[in-house]
Amino acid sequence: MRVIREGEEFLLYKEKLLVGRCSCVQQGEGWQLASFWVDPAWRRKGYGSFLLRQVLKSTGGYTGESLHFLTLGESPAEKALAEKFGFSPAGNLWRRHRVPDPTAVGLTHDFLRQNLLPGGFFVDATCGNGGDTEFLCRLAGPGGRVLALDLQQQAVDNTNARLAAAGLSDIGRAVQADHANLAQLVEAGSADCVVFNFGYLPGADHSLFTTPKSSLPAVEAALAALRPGGILAACLYSGGPNGDGEKNALLEFFRALPIREYTVLVCEFANWAPTAPLPCFVRKKGW
Amino acid sequence: MRVIREGEEFLLYKEKLLVGRCSCVQQGEGWQLASFWVDPAWRRKGYGSFLLRQVLKSTGGYTGESLHFLTLGESPAEKALAEKFGFSPAGNLWRRHRVPDPTAVGLTHDFLRQNLLPGGFFVDATCGNGGDTEFLCRLAGPGGRVLALDLQQQAVDNTNARLAAAGLSDIGRAVQADHANLAQLVEAGSADCVVFNFGYLPGADHSLFTTPKSSLPAVEAALAALRPGGILAACLYSGGPNGDGEKNALLEFFRALPIREYTVLVCEFANWAPTAPLPCFVRKKGW
Repeated sequence: MRVIREGEEFLLYKEKLLVGRCSCVQQGEGWQLASFWVDPAWRRKGYGSFLLRQVLKSTGGYTGESLHFLTLGESPAEKALAEKFGFSPAGNLWRRHRVPDPTAVGLTHDFLRQNLLPGGFFVDATCGNGGDTEFLCRLAGPGGRVLALDLQQQAVDNTNARLAAAGLSDIGRAVQADHANLAQLVEAGSADCVVFNFGYLPGADHSLFTTPKSSLPAVEAALAALRPGGILAACLYSGGPNGDGEKNALLEFFRALPIREYTVLVCEFANWAPTAPLPCFVRKKGW
Repeated sequence: MRVIREGEEFLLYKEKLLVGRCSCVQQGEGWQLASFWVDPAWRRKGYGSFLLRQVLKSTGGYTGESLHFLTLGESPAEKALAEKFGFSPAGNLWRRHRVPDPTAVGLTHDFLRQNLLPGGFFVDATCGNGGDTEFLCRLAGPGGRVLALDLQQQAVDNTNARLAAAGLSDIGRAVQADHANLAQLVEAGSADCVVFNFGYLPGADHSLFTTPKSSLPAVEAALAALRPGGILAACLYSGGPNGDGEKNALLEFFRALPIREYTVLVCEFANWAPTAPLPCFVRKKGW
């Protein structure tokens, strides 16, 4: 059993026999799946599911956000197939809108996107592989500026290479520095945001991790670096070799911040393991 | 001392003497404040602050989101004035971007806006004064549908009147019902979101509040009502006559939801009082 794509057509073969097909046209932000058909002789054997899964896979239905519309008849089997794949009725069509599961990174980017304007000055205090730095550069736009720090020269090089490849070198730049020395690099009251990832970075070298000894001074310096209305975003990673000492120290610090000067938001993935990443946001008041 | 607005000009008078002025032009999404001037004889006495505060107040600088640009000279006094009001240097101008402090309602609306599409079916399970219902109707748009419930007939009437006044009656409708009976009103697997406000509603009659006896069955029914990918948003209010029993019961329920079927996010205002509103989000997986 295999599916062959010919332009806008997906063809399902069993050996050399065509047993199903689906045409597939991109429309606006979504995909329109029409003329979905399985040879009646081969129905109720999982062929329809196999074909639909391949079509969805091929058109991004399992990664990131996606929107699909499916045209089907009205038989109970067709209804069951649509529902199995997360489609729900929408007028004459079936609609499937996939929104990715919330993640710590996605949540942080959503929050920053909603609270920052192009043209700002953004700081990535722990740039690692440069993912957040690139995101901040795109948010800052040509009129903005992004400064990225990392203790490891390799991370700095990777980030600068990533920015260059993305054509963002005029906006952002990574330099080798301990984030505890943030105050020497960023003028007080100048930053619209400072972003941290604390602990070890998933997928990176787990023998290297941040510790409260440098992260507490770094967070204090970051708050001083923020202008009124600015945002500190800190994702706390715990577990593994660094345990949860740093997470608890930072949480205690955040919780004790005076309510007249700061709003602190801690977003917990409450049915995940206690070591789940913990996105925290601190907004500096001022006017 | 008083400020008089004449068209685009703000004039500061001390008795009948003109001692300052500021012109003020709306540009794009922001305001451009130019030719800010205080009579040298009257400087360093707080007149500049008084004028600037009135100009900002008059142009929405203290409510909601706002963006102002200010043209100033380069004297230390002018710099200090700009910084005092939250402006920061942006090229030749000073820029002041006010983003409102995060609130439970704002956070919930941001999350829903980011996870729901127009054309969906949204449920407001505790409509109260109809604020969330109206928000959901605008999000659903003409192709969508919103069902609102409340135990109190007065709340239902208020909500329907509000929707009518806003021209949203074709999209949303409130009916009198206990949210514990949600399953009788909403077909399983049909809703893109269900929104709750638990506890007493700030500003409303505090002798009326929800209890775990009806709220736990309501939440279970809401999860069954969601289609795959759908969102349950529940803001937990505690303190006052209802204490924190319901909040703790719901939190315990949310935390125990199986990770393979749901993602639970609990967003805590971590430096506020323990009775601060607690926005919770549950996303139903499925594909």
